[in-house]
Amino acid sequence: MSILAVGTVAFDRIETPFGKRDRALGGSAMYITMAARFFTPHPRIMAVVGGDFPDAYMEVLASSGVDLTGLEIIGKGKTFAWGGRYHYDLNNRDTLYTDLNVLSTFSPVLPAAYANSRVVCLGNLDPSVQLQVLDQVQTADFVMCDTMNYWIESSLDTLQEVLARVDCLAVNDSEARELSGEPNLVRAARIIREMGPDIVIVKKGEHGALMFTEKDIFAVPAYPLEEIQDPTGAGDAFMGGFAGYLDAANSFGSDDLKHALVFGSAIASYCVESFGPERLLDLSMSDIENRIGAFRDLTTIPASQVQAGY
Amino acid sequence: MSILAVGTVAFDRIETPFGKRDRALGGSAMYITMAARFFTPHPRIMAVVGGDFPDAYMEVLASSGVDLTGLEIIGKGKTFAWGGRYHYDLNNRDTLYTDLNVLSTFSPVLPAAYANSRVVCLGNLDPSVQLQVLDQVQTADFVMCDTMNYWIESSLDTLQEVLARVDCLAVNDSEARELSGEPNLVRAARIIREMGPDIVIVKKGEHGALMFTEKDIFAVPAYPLEEIQDPTGAGDAFMGGFAGYLDAANSFGSDDLKHALVFGSAIASYCVESFGPERLLDLSMSDIENRIGAFRDLTTIPASQVQAGY
Repeated sequence: MSILAVGTVAFDRIETPFGKRDRALGGSAMYITMAARFFTPHPRIMAVVGGDFPDAYMEVLASSGVDLTGLEIIGKGKTFAWGGRYHYDLNNRDTLYTDLNVLSTFSPVLPAAYANSRVVCLGNLDPSVQLQVLDQVQTADFVMCDTMNYWIESSLDTLQEVLARVDCLAVNDSEARELSGEPNLVRAARIIREMGPDIVIVKKGEHGALMFTEKDIFAVPAYPLEEIQDPTGAGDAFMGGFAGYLDAANSFGSDDLKHALVFGSAIASYCVESFGPERLLDLSMSDIENRIGAFRDLTTIPASQVQAGY
Repeated sequence: MSILAVGTVAFDRIETPFGKRDRALGGSAMYITMAARFFTPHPRIMAVVGGDFPDAYMEVLASSGVDLTGLEIIGKGKTFAWGGRYHYDLNNRDTLYTDLNVLSTFSPVLPAAYANSRVVCLGNLDPSVQLQVLDQVQTADFVMCDTMNYWIESSLDTLQEVLARVDCLAVNDSEARELSGEPNLVRAARIIREMGPDIVIVKKGEHGALMFTEKDIFAVPAYPLEEIQDPTGAGDAFMGGFAGYLDAANSFGSDDLKHALVFGSAIASYCVESFGPERLLDLSMSDIENRIGAFRDLTTIPASQVQAGY
């Protein structure tokens, strides 16, 4: 079992109606690995941090089992930093700042020890960096990627080169609409699948996710939570749970993909319960399995029904 | 089996990116009965129209099995008329006009033949009119109602009198948030349940619906359609399918309610495929059962899964 997450490790400033955190541990590669570790013992990370990245955060990652071989440290640089403020209903946020710092020159080189990575997650990054990684992981069984509106608008050609080479794209509904130029999500997913990925996952935040494959469509709701403190990282935690499950299953059939979608959703539902990765840090596999059961209760249409009609 | 729908019968002007209709057959009571008729042979209607209401529309209702005993005709009046224009993505619309006409003095009196109505649907109406109906159907087994932002803002006290006396409220997510003063839908549903209804259904349009009961929460996605021509009436068709199913089941247990939610969603998913009630008119019970099967495929989490963890 070997999963590789390429993305960011960051300092996050997070403001929600329920509190604030400054210089919290953040970043897509961090969330992906912190979710994937429930399925695969030593998820591999490729990311870059500056000399200001604290030992305490390094220890959080290491003690969670994350393989840090590919975490580049640029001693004279500063760690990527992002700040966001969520609105009252948590469905929208304003970006306060994005300081790329060491991320601006990130040029990932695959460590030899990562050469056999079987499942690869490309977090939201410049598509040219995603391409650079793709050139180095050509023996992977399953590659999935994320992107964002910024790259769709500024680097569409490069992004389409990426899409032609990945198995799965996981994006927000607004990103799926923008990438395809099509407001209807069923048609949008078909258009995106024609760009390359066999599997398109449309993440809809509080409304759950839809997975489109050649064979079918699968829908999973978001778990209805009373307490959501911070949506940051939910999409990345979803991706890590999804990919980690597939890595553990060592199989990519229709049922595996559906299970993976539910496991990813379950971990994402825990992620938002606290700030940053706080809830993921004290999460157990039995918590996750409990929530899988709750998802079954939430969605299972009872088998028998009265004869309808007259 | 006896279901009663109280609401509007209207002339609708509908504009969507896919076409227009003027003076189309519309209204909540029309959509509710046109959906309920698949489960219960002669759904009863209480509504009012003017002398301008065409015989052809009367014939559409009659030939669909709708019991027109309670359809009041005010010969010198004009039928309630509504116009709406949907935006590009169909998720939002502007109201072009609302001409109450005969609806402004609607004062429903239950015909003797309707006295044994067992399931009652109160479509979106002035809560004082809904109250007037409630006074006349006190032996009903199950009463559900709809409302809208306008009544929440202008007639909250009267609306709360209604809520204290119904079994189920079905509203949009924005209405649930406004009525409860709470953005989180789980808490919003609990607050609304404390106002009276045992069952709260939150309709989320293209994102499906959530049903909250004392015992549990049940989620059903919207069926992912490639072609949506007109969302008008989907919520009312949902209500008619939901209530019609319960009337046919003659039982209101947890599994019945879940089945009802899926049947309502299936009929609503057909409703939006064409303009106004056009698709409902040529719909068959086998169409509906096919879509129930499609809903199962869309949502069923496969039973077995690999052992997660390591």
